[in-house]
Amino acid sequence: MEKTKKVQEGETEMFQDIQLKNVRVDDPFWSQRQKLLGSVTVPYQEDILYDRIPGIEKSHAIANLKIAAGLMEGEFYGMVFQDSDIAKWIEGAAFSLALFPDPELEKRIDEVIDLIEQAQLEDGYFDTYFIVKEPGRCFQNLQEGHELYCAGHLIEAAVAYYEVTGKDRLLHIVERMVDCIRAHIGPEEGKIRGVPGHEEIELALMKLYRLTKDEKYEQLASYFVYERGNDPDFFENERKNRGWAVWGGSFTNIDYHQVRMKAASQTRAVGHSVRAMYYYTAMADLAEHRQDQQLADACRRLWENVTSKQMYITGNIGQEAAWEGFTNDYELPNDLIYGETCASIGMVFWARRMLEIQALGSYADVMELELFNGVLSGMQMDGKHFFYVNPLEVNPGVSGVLPEYRHVLPERPEWYACACCPPNVVRLILSIEKYAWGEKEHTIYSHLFLGGEARFDAADLTVHSEFPRKGRIEYLIRPKKESFTFAVRIPGYARNVRISRNGILQKQQAVDGYVYFEGGWAERESVLVEFDMPLQRQYANPLVRADAGCVAFRKGPFIYCAEGADNAEPLQELRIPDAGEYREIPIEDGVLKGITAIQMPCRRAKGEAGFLYTEKKPELVPETLTLIPYFAWGNRGVNQMRVWLHAL
Amino acid sequence: MEKTKKVQEGETEMFQDIQLKNVRVDDPFWSQRQKLLGSVTVPYQEDILYDRIPGIEKSHAIANLKIAAGLMEGEFYGMVFQDSDIAKWIEGAAFSLALFPDPELEKRIDEVIDLIEQAQLEDGYFDTYFIVKEPGRCFQNLQEGHELYCAGHLIEAAVAYYEVTGKDRLLHIVERMVDCIRAHIGPEEGKIRGVPGHEEIELALMKLYRLTKDEKYEQLASYFVYERGNDPDFFENERKNRGWAVWGGSFTNIDYHQVRMKAASQTRAVGHSVRAMYYYTAMADLAEHRQDQQLADACRRLWENVTSKQMYITGNIGQEAAWEGFTNDYELPNDLIYGETCASIGMVFWARRMLEIQALGSYADVMELELFNGVLSGMQMDGKHFFYVNPLEVNPGVSGVLPEYRHVLPERPEWYACACCPPNVVRLILSIEKYAWGEKEHTIYSHLFLGGEARFDAADLTVHSEFPRKGRIEYLIRPKKESFTFAVRIPGYARNVRISRNGILQKQQAVDGYVYFEGGWAERESVLVEFDMPLQRQYANPLVRADAGCVAFRKGPFIYCAEGADNAEPLQELRIPDAGEYREIPIEDGVLKGITAIQMPCRRAKGEAGFLYTEKKPELVPETLTLIPYFAWGNRGVNQMRVWLHAL
Repeated sequence: MEKTKKVQEGETEMFQDIQLKNVRVDDPFWSQRQKLLGSVTVPYQEDILYDRIPGIEKSHAIANLKIAAGLMEGEFYGMVFQDSDIAKWIEGAAFSLALFPDPELEKRIDEVIDLIEQAQLEDGYFDTYFIVKEPGRCFQNLQEGHELYCAGHLIEAAVAYYEVTGKDRLLHIVERMVDCIRAHIGPEEGKIRGVPGHEEIELALMKLYRLTKDEKYEQLASYFVYERGNDPDFFENERKNRGWAVWGGSFTNIDYHQVRMKAASQTRAVGHSVRAMYYYTAMADLAEHRQDQQLADACRRLWENVTSKQMYITGNIGQEAAWEGFTNDYELPNDLIYGETCASIGMVFWARRMLEIQALGSYADVMELELFNGVLSGMQMDGKHFFYVNPLEVNPGVSGVLPEYRHVLPERPEWYACACCPPNVVRLILSIEKYAWGEKEHTIYSHLFLGGEARFDAADLTVHSEFPRKGRIEYLIRPKKESFTFAVRIPGYARNVRISRNGILQKQQAVDGYVYFEGGWAERESVLVEFDMPLQRQYANPLVRADAGCVAFRKGPFIYCAEGADNAEPLQELRIPDAGEYREIPIEDGVLKGITAIQMPCRRAKGEAGFLYTEKKPELVPETLTLIPYFAWGNRGVNQMRVWLHAL
Repeated sequence: MEKTKKVQEGETEMFQDIQLKNVRVDDPFWSQRQKLLGSVTVPYQEDILYDRIPGIEKSHAIANLKIAAGLMEGEFYGMVFQDSDIAKWIEGAAFSLALFPDPELEKRIDEVIDLIEQAQLEDGYFDTYFIVKEPGRCFQNLQEGHELYCAGHLIEAAVAYYEVTGKDRLLHIVERMVDCIRAHIGPEEGKIRGVPGHEEIELALMKLYRLTKDEKYEQLASYFVYERGNDPDFFENERKNRGWAVWGGSFTNIDYHQVRMKAASQTRAVGHSVRAMYYYTAMADLAEHRQDQQLADACRRLWENVTSKQMYITGNIGQEAAWEGFTNDYELPNDLIYGETCASIGMVFWARRMLEIQALGSYADVMELELFNGVLSGMQMDGKHFFYVNPLEVNPGVSGVLPEYRHVLPERPEWYACACCPPNVVRLILSIEKYAWGEKEHTIYSHLFLGGEARFDAADLTVHSEFPRKGRIEYLIRPKKESFTFAVRIPGYARNVRISRNGILQKQQAVDGYVYFEGGWAERESVLVEFDMPLQRQYANPLVRADAGCVAFRKGPFIYCAEGADNAEPLQELRIPDAGEYREIPIEDGVLKGITAIQMPCRRAKGEAGFLYTEKKPELVPETLTLIPYFAWGNRGVNQMRVWLHAL
């Protein structure tokens, strides 16, 4: 078990994120979703930013930009972080360009960049909320102001746009913007010794650093990560000195912002979950880059806490709506959940960085779980409706209606006034290549199964994948160097794993979730990974009160759920046997076309009106249970849904 | 089955509530509780009203009275309905005097009545909030002002104090007060055609009417009941015309106040549950008094809705904290529940009035269920700590802590700023005789088993009761008239019922929950009712999602629960077999002394740290389950508690 790929101390070569130009996706699952996002969602979100879609809450994001640029009269409208919608759209649109070249779209992105350039102040400052609405109050409210959060997203957009197009105009804008931030914030005398109220800029600065190799970006990222928690009262003191507020001073809890203690001391995930995820992503990134073992240990502790104590079976995190975040270990209510789509996206970011610290299959397993469940459930099949909140149990008349459940919508709405999740889904799925592949220390990693092609320094690969329909992935490898390692992740749910190299069955076992192929590469080699993905019953740790006595279903990367559209309501009447045959039913038409449902015999404890409590145990009648993948729920109108079903 | 005792049309004799002077309680269960309330709680609450208890939220109720009376300088402090604390205390103290004569207490009550008399305005108006804080705004805010609610409680206090002491000073005060109300509110031209925002005065006026036989009180009660819902917009229009508010206009929902439709049209319980209970009590009272079949039908529909769709197994009602009231049928969350003690008390009031419409054992069964569970759980064993909210599941670190659960305290606090429940428990339990007995149409009813003596026109009774420890109640009857009927309720949970008359076993069956003994009374007769009360497993209707897959326990009138004090936590790990032996364990010391616990074998699905979800079904290890009566929970520190346990 010493095969674990650990970073050697002293190694200095900077790892680079996978560049989209080196990968071509041709995947039976993800290609059609990327196509939908590129052809439908990116232009739809563009129309929203320009307020061209009637009947939905206006965005005003482009209008804010025009007003800030002096091209239009008017007032700022929207959230204090409205700019980030534009940044995230640019990033997603850039990734879309990489997959689906579109000169018209590229031109339109350039026009938005024009506006940003014109709106940017002389000193590099850029944030339309403060430029238009609160001039003179810049950087006075790091807690609520979201200037650094928006800056982070603009940096990510610039890095992505440069990566895809080679155009550096937005890059220079963000470089000037970061110089402005550095001029005002930092550990030096006379500067604001603060940290952002919403983490994001840290991970973005690391991307900018990798692209530009300019140490000042790494230093600013490090400052933000290492300073955080140094002064738990910073936000409170800032508030006292300021005398004004964006939201009237809610969310003053230091846990909400993860500032109770320094990064290296953190032991459990607390507060707002998206903030936490972006923070932990940067922590992991820096821990690896700086070889900071204390920081890496903190990342491992936090990972352990989230994934073994505070994560839903679908990968969703954030149990509490009031602060959109974490609560107690094992406290995982399925119906009251927050489970924000962005938090699952943040888990993907974090998992990907954890894989750089150490290639553990369990990190990639969670990353894949999020992508196929917690992230994807955020989007309707039509690419135009989105969930913020992803419940594991929905009850019509209760969810979205009763006060405690008002945030749990039973159907995806068209748009939100606060539109953080939709463009986040776009930018993640359109760059899924960056998460599927890895290259480090002369090792090529296949973290996720993704059909298509990928070029690395050491070799070029072609992948024929039948995943997730079937556990059969064939890698054709054309080595370019003599010595390198090829590592393929074997998922935790894989059963009866067969590994062949050049047609010959191998006895090789996965080590920490990866099978490693080394040395003696012929001109063309093939690695075939095959495994079974039987339907698995899943039981929660009995410490989880919400799932006691219940069972859930998993098949490969998919968690399943039962919906009223396929099963008579109420679903709590269903009783699931411990074992038994099941059938896979490919859905051949309708909105769920292409998805495979699962059917099996079950029982129903049939209720009837007229009484509440009785000495007689409910009689059980035979019934057929129909399950669909969790991500596909809520596409057929308002109905009941449950992931956890009562066991017989 | 035609034996049902229905009221004959045209019958005019007014029924009277049982007078305390005709009953002496000597009961193995209730006597000690009455003693505790009389000796500890009544003086404790008196000290609170006078602000003599250090370290708890001040009441200021007596101070408000002194300020209103011009005997003290100062500002009004407390809730808009703070006066009702005094009224409820007087009522409870009066009932205490009936049981435990105490000239000193009587003198102190008279002193409070002095203050009320001095504070009352010339025109009869009495409400210290408006007299002291908002003069000139009387009767402008029937929605929030609680003047009629407080008036109702003062009327009840006056009726009780007169009943016990024969002193009529408070009675005259409330007569003048009601005259003032009648001068301002009513259907006549020039008066406010409104109804109270919080029902209460209706049922109080009926008590005043029965005592004084003055029709004007019945007419005002009728006006309030029949006018309600006539103009659903009354509160909204009142608010618009007024331009000021007590609470800034929350609770504007017409369902909250039960004003969407007229009484006779109501089909399901909605809104604030205490308001609803007091309303339904008055509806039932009037339906019977006026022989209004439409109103009686509405009462039956509402009763059916509450008891077969919206009531917890402990009798608690009101599922939603936001409006302290009803939500959806079968939506009965055990941990988010409101379940106010006062609402269970209201159920007792309502059930008692339903029994006058028709003597159905099911009404008395619910009345008894409330008394032994939902009501009694509101009070600590020490008589000094109280619950507002009575949960069926408590989880330390969640209950009282996480936002959705903040109202669900895991321990009874000493006092509340809003102190409606504690004095309500006092006045109910100290007058339990009124609920236990009934007399109507030449029939004496034993609705509840209550040891002691009771005198009626037709006969005097002595009751030797071993209930609830044992189902053995002996009635010694000394007839005073030749012809009368004696009816004893046989509870729904009774098994193997044996009925003897003068030592001879009878073949008589209960009809609609009552056994009727008629005619040919000898000078002395005895009726012995015996039945078994085996431990019963209770299953919820599968339409109740919160209880799916769970089982609860009932033994006689008691619902049981498991507490962390007796069982290793977490309690959701426990798995209860379908059947099996059990032991009764009398608790011989400590705070639960005198209570009988129940033990039986069960299993535990043992959780352990390190993972969240697994393919392996949790192993079950043998364990002993210990249950205690629900009312006794929360007396041994903060710990987990569950009524519903997972079935094996």
